[in-house]
Amino acid sequence: MHDTRTIEIKENIHSENDRIAEHINHELTHKGVFVVNEMGAPGVGKTTVLLNIIERLKEFKTYVIEGDIESDLDTQTLKERGIPAVQINTFGACHLDAPLVANAVQNIDFEEGRTILFIENVGNLVCPAEFNIGEHIKMLICSVTEGSDKPYKYPLAFGEADLVLLNKIDLYPHIDFDEEFFMKGFRALNKESPLIKVSGKTGEGFDEAASMIESMAVKCLSAQK
Amino acid sequence: MHDTRTIEIKENIHSENDRIAEHINHELTHKGVFVVNEMGAPGVGKTTVLLNIIERLKEFKTYVIEGDIESDLDTQTLKERGIPAVQINTFGACHLDAPLVANAVQNIDFEEGRTILFIENVGNLVCPAEFNIGEHIKMLICSVTEGSDKPYKYPLAFGEADLVLLNKIDLYPHIDFDEEFFMKGFRALNKESPLIKVSGKTGEGFDEAASMIESMAVKCLSAQK
Repeated sequence: MHDTRTIEIKENIHSENDRIAEHINHELTHKGVFVVNEMGAPGVGKTTVLLNIIERLKEFKTYVIEGDIESDLDTQTLKERGIPAVQINTFGACHLDAPLVANAVQNIDFEEGRTILFIENVGNLVCPAEFNIGEHIKMLICSVTEGSDKPYKYPLAFGEADLVLLNKIDLYPHIDFDEEFFMKGFRALNKESPLIKVSGKTGEGFDEAASMIESMAVKCLSAQK
Repeated sequence: MHDTRTIEIKENIHSENDRIAEHINHELTHKGVFVVNEMGAPGVGKTTVLLNIIERLKEFKTYVIEGDIESDLDTQTLKERGIPAVQINTFGACHLDAPLVANAVQNIDFEEGRTILFIENVGNLVCPAEFNIGEHIKMLICSVTEGSDKPYKYPLAFGEADLVLLNKIDLYPHIDFDEEFFMKGFRALNKESPLIKVSGKTGEGFDEAASMIESMAVKCLSAQK
């Protein structure tokens, strides 16, 4: 009885969330906005990745929604670089959901023209993968310092990702990272999504990552016309 | 209305959880078992930390409960080293709770004598800090590769920790980690709990960490007699 009620409540939360997520996606697609849900564990370098990608985007305006439990440190960092950013604090919740994002989106005055909205999710490799927030793609950031077993332990995040960036490759010489084991686990869950190796410190790999995101955005927005 | 119902459900879940956690704690204290709830983000080195501590414990038998969403990689690693370990899979849930732990504890046949039970929580810096699972202390593992802003972003985990291990200090020369900023954030949340710097790779700091845990265990179990 206890289990049945829990499942019913979870299903209701998810269907309500998905309805709002679909609405966000529809509205933003109509405005020419491509939405990237950026996920990853604490400390993998999600904000540094955004800074590196955004400075390389050639044909798109960009906006960022920053999701954190508390604090607005990352939003400050982005604004200092001249990137329009809006903060969401979840005050305890371990993921963003569609209602929170819908409210933040209302506060962004999107300019005309092709645009990418990056939504940096709460640092967490579990629940963010369960909640759609209106995105066109899920971009998963992981790092070589986390170890090579992560696809085996967090299969939903790796299975759902449309693009994976493997960060901190500048630290390769100093750590034990079994790339073959990592890729075997990742490909068992996800046959097709591209994986690009990057370094937030040296900038390596971000030309390819930015150009990949631009081409995904062009393809997606053209298909919706 | 929606919010009120959500809060009521959460309160019920938490009070039921706490009742079971208290029961676990009472039973294990009675048996002379000191319980450590090990928390930390994915990839900070929780299992490596356990291996390093356990081989240095002089006066205690040890058991481990491994919490993961899926897989039993870490349990295998522990068993290969001769450490008795039991696996809990949460199948999607982002934290351990007291009922899951109570079931696992029933499957451990504790030998007579002073014992430490380490419970490695699911890799997540958010929800595990909200759920008591019968522990005497919460041990938080973080790492210098995660960046120095973590106490500001995940205040509950840092505020609740009775012991913090700052891991991967062998990588200090290769990364930017602002220790002063980190400690300022940590001490704003937590005035008293010790923080020990360790390296799972070189073993540095683990003599101190193991001896700290032993003295906490002796103190706690003596007080309960």
